[in-house]
Amino acid sequence: MARNAQLDSLIKRLARLPGLGPRSAQRAALFLLKNRDQLMLPLAAELDAAARNFRPCAECGNLDSTDLCHICTDSRRQPDRLCVVEDVSDLWAIERAGIYAGRYHILGGNLSALDGRGPRELGIDRLVARAAGMVGAHPDAEVILATSATMDGQTTAHYIAERLAGLVLNVTRLAHGLPVGGELNYLDEGTLAQALKARSKIQPS
Amino acid sequence: MARNAQLDSLIKRLARLPGLGPRSAQRAALFLLKNRDQLMLPLAAELDAAARNFRPCAECGNLDSTDLCHICTDSRRQPDRLCVVEDVSDLWAIERAGIYAGRYHILGGNLSALDGRGPRELGIDRLVARAAGMVGAHPDAEVILATSATMDGQTTAHYIAERLAGLVLNVTRLAHGLPVGGELNYLDEGTLAQALKARSKIQPS
Repeated sequence: MARNAQLDSLIKRLARLPGLGPRSAQRAALFLLKNRDQLMLPLAAELDAAARNFRPCAECGNLDSTDLCHICTDSRRQPDRLCVVEDVSDLWAIERAGIYAGRYHILGGNLSALDGRGPRELGIDRLVARAAGMVGAHPDAEVILATSATMDGQTTAHYIAERLAGLVLNVTRLAHGLPVGGELNYLDEGTLAQALKARSKIQPS
Repeated sequence: MARNAQLDSLIKRLARLPGLGPRSAQRAALFLLKNRDQLMLPLAAELDAAARNFRPCAECGNLDSTDLCHICTDSRRQPDRLCVVEDVSDLWAIERAGIYAGRYHILGGNLSALDGRGPRELGIDRLVARAAGMVGAHPDAEVILATSATMDGQTTAHYIAERLAGLVLNVTRLAHGLPVGGELNYLDEGTLAQALKARSKIQPS
């Protein structure tokens, strides 16, 4: 036997992280053991603290150490914009772009018959109720459906749009088209078709 | 600000692990937070325990939770074979192969002028003393230099061989040649040259 059981268990657990396989988990474990005081012990403490402190925001599903997340409690954020995303990482991505000042709603996934996720699992009723509340306070409130441009993501957006029809007037989705910096000849035909269909007039300056 | 400081700190620390970058550390952190009880809390506890329990073996440098590692204390291992490797992961690799029953000596790296690692940093004196002790007890003891087939690895092996000359008669190195399953036309010329030079006679069966 090459390693003792305690080390094997640690490596197996590290290997469950996305992005790490059995071999890289070994490397990570060794790296940690060589950087005990600067990395391994603080990481253990931070993991433990984060596991105990963080929970989904009761309003939007974002992860934070308070019952309501710092976005939901920030009075400077627009109260009449609601951006519906699949996952917390999508919220992070939009926040990084720094161009959105409204609220969020995190679904926690897509509608997927294959994975057994239906409207109930995604809490669509709660989203509809929340949107209704927003429209009650701000009649021209906007719901932005920022799900992935995948089949499941678009199905989910379509389903939510139908559920909001008649309730929210202002339901939008993200534009589809060329990614910034993208070259035409590397683009798939689907994206190219969308970009052509949604072409916009160049304003003379 | 997209995340709170505690989460940012955790993600930054995860990103320091080999194999994880900033983006995959984010994914790993989210995955951990979603698998709090099965993964995150146990991982925190195991990291903490391993950081406190594991230390280098006083004899060979292997990592274990005892002062002398389980290989050094295993009386069934051959006392007259010493395999010199660069790192603990090399020991693991050889143990996985299951074809070696002797002892190990872990250098902790290679001689590298660039990284400022000389004979003192690798503790070559201690290795020489250990080899001398082995030869005292077992005159035909063998020292296997299992360093990497890189420039630095071979320089290190060469240096150690010179230090052991006159002291240990039986100093060997790993064979160089075709990796098992390797195709000739994908092989670099250096390996091919080594494989040709070290060709062996096929015994008629």
